[in-house]
Amino acid sequence: MTSRLRRRLLALGASFLVTSCGKQDNAAPARPGTGLSMRPYGERSPHEKAARLARESTKSIGVGSSRTPLEDLYGTITPSSLHFERHHAGVPVLDPAAFHLLLHGLVETPLKFTLADLKRFPSVTRTHFIECSGNGGGELAGSPGPTPGRSHGLLSNTEWTGVPLRAVLDAAKLQPRAAWVIAEGADACRMARSIPLAKALDDALLVYAQNGEALRPEQGYPLRLLLPGWEGNASIKWLHRLEVSDQPAMGNQETAHYTDLHPDGKASIFTFEMESNSIITYPSGTQKLAGPGPYEITGLAWSGRGKIVRVEVTVDGGQTWQPARLEEPVQSKAVVRFRLPWQWAGAETKIASRSIDETGYVQPTRDDIIAARGINSTYHFNGIKPWLVKADGSVTHV
Amino acid sequence: MTSRLRRRLLALGASFLVTSCGKQDNAAPARPGTGLSMRPYGERSPHEKAARLARESTKSIGVGSSRTPLEDLYGTITPSSLHFERHHAGVPVLDPAAFHLLLHGLVETPLKFTLADLKRFPSVTRTHFIECSGNGGGELAGSPGPTPGRSHGLLSNTEWTGVPLRAVLDAAKLQPRAAWVIAEGADACRMARSIPLAKALDDALLVYAQNGEALRPEQGYPLRLLLPGWEGNASIKWLHRLEVSDQPAMGNQETAHYTDLHPDGKASIFTFEMESNSIITYPSGTQKLAGPGPYEITGLAWSGRGKIVRVEVTVDGGQTWQPARLEEPVQSKAVVRFRLPWQWAGAETKIASRSIDETGYVQPTRDDIIAARGINSTYHFNGIKPWLVKADGSVTHV
Repeated sequence: MTSRLRRRLLALGASFLVTSCGKQDNAAPARPGTGLSMRPYGERSPHEKAARLARESTKSIGVGSSRTPLEDLYGTITPSSLHFERHHAGVPVLDPAAFHLLLHGLVETPLKFTLADLKRFPSVTRTHFIECSGNGGGELAGSPGPTPGRSHGLLSNTEWTGVPLRAVLDAAKLQPRAAWVIAEGADACRMARSIPLAKALDDALLVYAQNGEALRPEQGYPLRLLLPGWEGNASIKWLHRLEVSDQPAMGNQETAHYTDLHPDGKASIFTFEMESNSIITYPSGTQKLAGPGPYEITGLAWSGRGKIVRVEVTVDGGQTWQPARLEEPVQSKAVVRFRLPWQWAGAETKIASRSIDETGYVQPTRDDIIAARGINSTYHFNGIKPWLVKADGSVTHV
Repeated sequence: MTSRLRRRLLALGASFLVTSCGKQDNAAPARPGTGLSMRPYGERSPHEKAARLARESTKSIGVGSSRTPLEDLYGTITPSSLHFERHHAGVPVLDPAAFHLLLHGLVETPLKFTLADLKRFPSVTRTHFIECSGNGGGELAGSPGPTPGRSHGLLSNTEWTGVPLRAVLDAAKLQPRAAWVIAEGADACRMARSIPLAKALDDALLVYAQNGEALRPEQGYPLRLLLPGWEGNASIKWLHRLEVSDQPAMGNQETAHYTDLHPDGKASIFTFEMESNSIITYPSGTQKLAGPGPYEITGLAWSGRGKIVRVEVTVDGGQTWQPARLEEPVQSKAVVRFRLPWQWAGAETKIASRSIDETGYVQPTRDDIIAARGINSTYHFNGIKPWLVKADGSVTHV
């Protein structure tokens, strides 16, 4: 805590935060028993209930999404068990011993790698978010999410370990006409996306581990592509094939879906980058403040273009904005936690956050986005998300 | 990957890493089914078996330890399910709704906090290791651990969120004679340690979250003390009472245990700080290299005194040392992952790592430690850990 924050807390009279107690309360409570014994692989407390918010198709098997309950999270790491999901044909359970990654197309030497082969390459560890480009789409469509998880929960942030895609392409040696890498997953629908070579040679990773252990099945076990800062759909899970090409595949997932429709009826395609965004997770919709007094406003900010440099918070409906504290270390293309102490006087007000990334880009309002591209586009919404704090302390979406 | 590493990989002839394949291999394998459906709280693949290595007392209930299998981990984060444990009276399962933290003793106003009270304080998120001061003790005693987990697995590293202890002490206002804070857990044995006030006012935290979610029961749910860089025993779990005093409690865990016995029969007490340490986790004991060729040597380094600034690796039994790459961001009192590409020619050799922290302290050898304090001390061993790579590729402890 900075000395400024500490002085502020003390100035607010911290004692009303807590229950003063007399000597008679100092006695230790009754002794519990010895409880649980040790487990080889631990589990959370039975009192903890945070869960992914799933929406599955009623028409097709294995099609749907589940959202991270952002309002239940602390810090910056998303527990792997609560990482959001977006599946197009279920979750294959693959045997890592039988797994191969095939690399072919416009390369000098087609190659096939086992998982053990890939682990012999020099590896890297990076913390990055993955966000579905459909995240927040309900906000633009006029059906705002009642909670952070419901509105922005197609976002998670974890520590990844794997091999730079560039190293694997170098091993096969690209042919001069190489311009795209088509990545294909081993799920039943063979999800595929076309990746521009520049990204493949920049920071794209082949990842086999997440948050210190092997990838979870829902995240592509045993291998996924990770394209830092780009829409999640392109980070192909259960990655089993890379084809180097001189042109994109123009597959279903980059033509019929994941395109941005403009008011004139034309659509942008291959709009990969996720722009700067943020959301307050406390206090937020469906929560209730206990009464006037000090609170900590906190939330998450992220940008697919690099580092977040500043997050501003308004507690008066946008009349004034003040900088929040960013938790260090701030990492590129990763979620950052912001915090701001707030003294709530008890009157109804609107609160919101806006993020600024290292390119100078400022998170826009929903009105800005509608003015720029209308209301037809269901992807890449990153408008400021306000919450209404009512006089009784209850919080709702606006 | 740096261009230096990439050139080096290419120079080594990366193609022998992988299996060249002809056109006939390009056909996609048979389609799997749609597999798993979505789960509210995910689990790892049934193919993954990494487990904590437990040793429980046969004499007392709930007494024992379990070690993190460091050789199975990737990156820097320890999955909460694999965080090491050291219990003195089992794992109480506490109801967070009934939980209180009592703060009394040499304060102006004794206070009792609910968990909700504590969450209204300005909070912080920090990544820190916890290491038992008995970690590596077998190395000094002449029974070296056959694997990194067995030798150094009383070490884990996670992202913590909580309230600075200082803020809570400020709320109660310390009396002038305050010099120690005695922290007591709610486990059946009421584990307690005495903490010097300077540490309590510096970076000590009251943490309620780990790796993005509530603390696990084995880590003190719903609240533990965290003393960054200090021996794990002092970071009291299931923390329910803090007593401010003018002297230490001189309890069992700081007199009969967790003291360092010198050759002259005297013992040091209150030796909290964990000194700079490191271990190679790949290749390591019981693993086997597939044959001569390129490998990545990787491991973990940490210091209770601040940041690691350098890790050096020897691949020739200590004749020469070369700097390893440190994964960014390097954080204070946190584990850092180091990596070094290595071309193994196939001859028997010894490999080892040594760390240097920001104070300039260089990790010593076992011989250095014995010369300085003999072999009676079972705590605070941080000697260089060598591994023997045999000509057949098998790796053993030395």
